[in-house]
Amino acid sequence: MADHEVNAVPVLRWEEPPEGPVLVLLDQTRLPGEEVECFCTDVPALVAAIRALVVRGAPLLGVVGGYGVALAAARGFDVEEASEQLAQARPTAVNLGYGVRRVRGVHERALAAGAGPEEAAAAALAEARAVHREEVEAGAAMGRHGWALLRELLPGGGLRVLTHCNTGTLVSGGEGTALAVVRAAHRAGALRRLWVDETRPLFQGSRLTGWEAARSGMAYSVLPDNAAGSLFAAGEVDAVVVGADRVAADGSVANKVGSYPLAVLARYHHVPFVVVAPLSTVDPGTEDGAGIEVEQRAGHEVTELAPGVSVAPPGARVYNPAFDVTPAELVTALVTESGVVSPVTPEGLAELCSRSRTRASQTGNGMMNA
Amino acid sequence: MADHEVNAVPVLRWEEPPEGPVLVLLDQTRLPGEEVECFCTDVPALVAAIRALVVRGAPLLGVVGGYGVALAAARGFDVEEASEQLAQARPTAVNLGYGVRRVRGVHERALAAGAGPEEAAAAALAEARAVHREEVEAGAAMGRHGWALLRELLPGGGLRVLTHCNTGTLVSGGEGTALAVVRAAHRAGALRRLWVDETRPLFQGSRLTGWEAARSGMAYSVLPDNAAGSLFAAGEVDAVVVGADRVAADGSVANKVGSYPLAVLARYHHVPFVVVAPLSTVDPGTEDGAGIEVEQRAGHEVTELAPGVSVAPPGARVYNPAFDVTPAELVTALVTESGVVSPVTPEGLAELCSRSRTRASQTGNGMMNA
Repeated sequence: MADHEVNAVPVLRWEEPPEGPVLVLLDQTRLPGEEVECFCTDVPALVAAIRALVVRGAPLLGVVGGYGVALAAARGFDVEEASEQLAQARPTAVNLGYGVRRVRGVHERALAAGAGPEEAAAAALAEARAVHREEVEAGAAMGRHGWALLRELLPGGGLRVLTHCNTGTLVSGGEGTALAVVRAAHRAGALRRLWVDETRPLFQGSRLTGWEAARSGMAYSVLPDNAAGSLFAAGEVDAVVVGADRVAADGSVANKVGSYPLAVLARYHHVPFVVVAPLSTVDPGTEDGAGIEVEQRAGHEVTELAPGVSVAPPGARVYNPAFDVTPAELVTALVTESGVVSPVTPEGLAELCSRSRTRASQTGNGMMNA
Repeated sequence: MADHEVNAVPVLRWEEPPEGPVLVLLDQTRLPGEEVECFCTDVPALVAAIRALVVRGAPLLGVVGGYGVALAAARGFDVEEASEQLAQARPTAVNLGYGVRRVRGVHERALAAGAGPEEAAAAALAEARAVHREEVEAGAAMGRHGWALLRELLPGGGLRVLTHCNTGTLVSGGEGTALAVVRAAHRAGALRRLWVDETRPLFQGSRLTGWEAARSGMAYSVLPDNAAGSLFAAGEVDAVVVGADRVAADGSVANKVGSYPLAVLARYHHVPFVVVAPLSTVDPGTEDGAGIEVEQRAGHEVTELAPGVSVAPPGARVYNPAFDVTPAELVTALVTESGVVSPVTPEGLAELCSRSRTRASQTGNGMMNA
């Protein structure tokens, strides 16, 4: 666990000045142009920040939700009310609810066991820090496993890695998923260049991954998504490393739209296509890729670049799927915090999940990275 | 030749009000939001319009250059000076110089043969109209040949065609290249949907092809370039039809960046990938794809969406190639105004070029669509 690395990108921190505790968030809506911090001293301010996308990214929202409950407890607000407000800030973000429930549970149990308000608040903060620490540890583990895999697949070093969307500190509070692997390669001095797909329509690649790469001192280049083909053709891509939103039981991977074309290009050019995701992303209830429902998002995301700047005729129909599905046979390896599955088969995936559950129950830690 | 179709999109027209002739251009910088016309009564105004990209697109610039010389002649300006100013408006646009030289030559020869200024101006205008008519005829021929090919490849009708960039009236003054084929399918009632790649970084697809599709009453949808993969995977693409900037002697095709990934996706999904381009695009002096130099364009095209709206960290390196190269083995067919080459082989290409030259010399028309 590389604390200095995480601190180098202060995506969130807990401060305790004399006037009371504060949750400080990096305002992601101002990136990459400005690094502005948002100071939350109560839950309504934090809810507003979550709604305004000052913080986003599923794992990071879990961490923030946990700290939010701890903040309410430390400031003497009604923890039950605060928890409900936080969980409702973005109702579809399951991680947010997970972090909130976990810290609230610890707080309630402390009070029920006879702890005073200060002691219960301290227990809540310790649990929020545990949620955060587990996230950091999971990212570090994915980084280690993924980097070991890359060394094995591409022993020469001097790697040119192509990535898509943002999968780093800004979504996780730790080092993230795919970007954790890239960071590990970079720390080892083995990253020659990070190719950063801009990731239309919302530019999470150029805006957020670009910012993380710049801040970490990586050699990186931003490119339009459709220019990746030229890089492959020129032999400029040694590996594709991306994250995942969901992995079906057959190993099909749903990820940010644009991942599947990269997988097809990678196959055509005999380049490894590596998916990095926590085990909690594996959904045994979804049998295969066809079972993954793809959300269609609003057309204005594609056609309006900025207020008043439209790039399509009024009333144009827009095809704007949030993600796409890559079949397992195009995925060279799936890297998780518990190890690597390669080739990606239903059996390999099931085995890793069951091995991980056994280990977790043996160590008394039944929680997977959510 | 479908004059009504071309008139339906008044990309340029010559008017003769009592106060003197005017070249009227559709201001392409205002599309797709507004249809604004730009009235040029002299060559400096026309040069300014060309420089400001009010008109662009190689073939259309040839037509505009021709009319520009005719305008100078009709208005009694110095034709030699006007021709030089026009040819220098965009020095790298070879078609512009071609149109200018051709009309200026006719004007000079008319004067040398003893014609008066009015008669010579009339001859210049007739030649400008001939340049325009040939462009329209070439587009119509590509449309016919391409549509016949699609009918043969996909006899069922109800076609869903994916295209990239803009290849229509807005670049040609006629019906264009790839879009001429789409228009022919649409006129025949066989176009179920046109999928319009937005075409980053400059959005020629969503802005210009979207506008042409809307104005022609086609069923169309705009999409981020990286969403095309999902359409292929869902079986929603029957054919890819794109233009070309240059075709090497081995049949390799340079076209707007993003074309090559579509060719790879099309091959992976067993979908025809059809390139439509005038024979003048075939460059026998370029042996193969490796011989095509790819221009790198300015990074701000990718990182700055609008003045003050940046989507990458300051100083980010940007990979922004203007086009990419698709090898002949991924091209199902090359459609030209003189016929179709399929499969695309050096021999097939050479034969079509030589057949076309023979025919041109027999009819006394040695000019290819430039």
